Amino acid sequence: MLSQDSIQTMAKKAKKASLRIANLDSSEKNRLLKAISERVKKSSQLIADSNLLDIQEAQKLVADGSLSKPLLDRLKLTDEKIVQLSTYLDEVARLEDPVGKKQFAIRLAEGMELERVTCPIGVVAVIFESRPEVVIQVTALSLKSGNAVILKGGREAFHSNKILFQIINEVLVEFDLNNTVNLIETRDDVAVLLNEDRNIDLIIPRGSNEFVKYIQDHTKIPVLGHSSGICHIYIDDNIDVDKTIKIVVDAKTDYPSACNALETLLIHRSAADSILPRIIRELSNYKVRMLGCEKSVKIANQNNLKLDLATEQDWSTEYTDLILSIKTVDSLSDAMDHINTFGSHHTDTIITENRENAELFLKQVDSGCVFHNASTRFSDGYVFGLGAEVGISTNKTHSRGPVGLDGMVIYKYLLRGDGHLRSSFSGPQAEKFLHIPL
Amino acid sequence: MLSQDSIQTMAKKAKKASLRIANLDSSEKNRLLKAISERVKKSSQLIADSNLLDIQEAQKLVADGSLSKPLLDRLKLTDEKIVQLSTYLDEVARLEDPVGKKQFAIRLAEGMELERVTCPIGVVAVIFESRPEVVIQVTALSLKSGNAVILKGGREAFHSNKILFQIINEVLVEFDLNNTVNLIETRDDVAVLLNEDRNIDLIIPRGSNEFVKYIQDHTKIPVLGHSSGICHIYIDDNIDVDKTIKIVVDAKTDYPSACNALETLLIHRSAADSILPRIIRELSNYKVRMLGCEKSVKIANQNNLKLDLATEQDWSTEYTDLILSIKTVDSLSDAMDHINTFGSHHTDTIITENRENAELFLKQVDSGCVFHNASTRFSDGYVFGLGAEVGISTNKTHSRGPVGLDGMVIYKYLLRGDGHLRSSFSGPQAEKFLHIPL
Repeated sequence: MLSQDSIQTMAKKAKKASLRIANLDSSEKNRLLKAISERVKKSSQLIADSNLLDIQEAQKLVADGSLSKPLLDRLKLTDEKIVQLSTYLDEVARLEDPVGKKQFAIRLAEGMELERVTCPIGVVAVIFESRPEVVIQVTALSLKSGNAVILKGGREAFHSNKILFQIINEVLVEFDLNNTVNLIETRDDVAVLLNEDRNIDLIIPRGSNEFVKYIQDHTKIPVLGHSSGICHIYIDDNIDVDKTIKIVVDAKTDYPSACNALETLLIHRSAADSILPRIIRELSNYKVRMLGCEKSVKIANQNNLKLDLATEQDWSTEYTDLILSIKTVDSLSDAMDHINTFGSHHTDTIITENRENAELFLKQVDSGCVFHNASTRFSDGYVFGLGAEVGISTNKTHSRGPVGLDGMVIYKYLLRGDGHLRSSFSGPQAEKFLHIPL
Repeated sequence: MLSQDSIQTMAKKAKKASLRIANLDSSEKNRLLKAISERVKKSSQLIADSNLLDIQEAQKLVADGSLSKPLLDRLKLTDEKIVQLSTYLDEVARLEDPVGKKQFAIRLAEGMELERVTCPIGVVAVIFESRPEVVIQVTALSLKSGNAVILKGGREAFHSNKILFQIINEVLVEFDLNNTVNLIETRDDVAVLLNEDRNIDLIIPRGSNEFVKYIQDHTKIPVLGHSSGICHIYIDDNIDVDKTIKIVVDAKTDYPSACNALETLLIHRSAADSILPRIIRELSNYKVRMLGCEKSVKIANQNNLKLDLATEQDWSTEYTDLILSIKTVDSLSDAMDHINTFGSHHTDTIITENRENAELFLKQVDSGCVFHNASTRFSDGYVFGLGAEVGISTNKTHSRGPVGLDGMVIYKYLLRGDGHLRSSFSGPQAEKFLHIPL
């Protein structure tokens, strides 16, 4: 752990650094990204060696049961993954610069024009777990969008994160951009950071529900993120059965620990009798444990299938595992009510051949991502064509859904006048504002 | 004060109501605004009578010195202001609907298309002081942008706010939109509201610095606003003297209690000897009290003018009064450093005939509004052509500067597929995403 002073000094220096990176033009930022990419490429052995240290420690933890096997897999930087690190930097270099875009311009008076242009946010703190490649990904997005960044990775990736940070920082120092990327190491460091509201403009926590809630409760810095991903599929009463079953299986089993995996299945009561038994049989093949409402359990029993009874708690539980809660509903409207009440406003899908119902669902479900006849698993910045994502947000302000480069910028108003006075526009002989769009 | 239960129930009902108003189309929302406008017009006597009750109570407070005269003026709904209330609703009805705008669309795969469309935020809480017309203005902006709103006005405008709320609510009930606009009355009610993060999506506090800071410290709901408006003018070394003096006088004296009024004047040392004495003489005519850095005081003394010495504290003080701090600086770069360090990122102006310096200042000053050769007083939603403003933000996320209708919306991603599975896009025979902009 760094001392409280060190963290405060780091935040202050990051703020100063943010003003420098903010003013680089696109070609300078891309040159920087490419230089980091080159350095990463040259350092592949060093990266592999450091990662091995983390893996060895993690293997011990897996052996004594205190770390899960999937977490170990996410930690490992295979040769292929190390090659991808520099590819990733090259790709972000190729993305359009989100800074300096004119959003609108207007003539307020003769000789006085206003424009609104995008600019970087300033200093962003990103807190994440296990996968060390996030150091590279978040750094690439931050630099491209002209922001300074403070990173906090998972304890289990300590050596990997450290070497990646060192490589990045070497290049930054050569570019006279010291303190633009910063790495902190412990949750205690994070606790100090949370009070740095004068120097940090945005926090993006990616971690467990409890951790995200802790962050939200302990800072007045704006927080962008999602504390849970309780994603729904609603099966309407006019469906293509094969299509339906495939989507449900994909959404639940493709990557059950992802935040966009299916957690609750809602079925229109007219469809339930025929489709529910097939779904139970199909998901059983994938070892999915299912919990149902009373009606669902009754239908299961009538078909000699086993279904445990869900409790009220299940409707607001994110399992991130091969577990699914199932509920029958009386109508589309009840399904939307359920989702808007119990969901986490992350990603929700309707399966229906009725286009009108689909559009109603897309309009009225209050979530960042609302889908028709597609797996919830498509909810992802890369899939959406944003190039990459720094996180997924269930906020209702700033940035919602997968957060790409355009979630890393804000705008400023620039007014160019020639001695214009506000008092000329009031009183009996007031000039009138022109308000002519340019 | 309402009971804690009542406030919680109000927030819950507002959330439900927000889903209804969110789904009205533009013509329905405009019909609603016009109906409120009509009702306000018909109720002008009722409004005047209620306002008189507030005025009478306020006059007593002015007499015993516990309320300032300007506050009394802001409280008064003159006949002209009452007519303006309905004009205001009509004008917002005419503004473009900010909801349902397609921001972009992209084909992800054959038969699967994604679009991003604007949508309302949900429930917005707005806390403001004295001027009762804010009830009408904020209601108009909230309804037009499809949001439910919880209003908290100043205690001194109790009767005026109440009658305006009742008129609005009568019309909402007729439109079957109960609970869309809500009024709470005390700071204790606000304290309860701050815990309603499940039901309230955004808080916009407009009030004293201390109050805004209190809100930021006591809620995890996103807060949009500005805790202070420490606005600067920097006088460069290549200036038109008459233009310069007029802008400085306008920025300081046109409306000293406004958040966009000038608080600190920075002067390039090469310009100070000639311009500072003229500025001191001119502002003295307007009874402005001035405080200067050592160098400024020296220049004043050499010209037989009186200038008190400023303390370090002055550089970060918002006077909201006829007081001005003055500092000489060695360069444009020092001026920008001073503003970025001591300012509140609200509105800052450079006065210069050097276009290159002007553009550098516009680019590098990290404030919501950055001006060249124009009074800081132009920083305002109506002036900027936004139609109106719900507040001014110094946040670096969501909405910055004057917040108009487009600060009252967010967006959602809508994906339309036909049985698409995420698993088809991974593994050895993976389909590739098309990412074709539409």
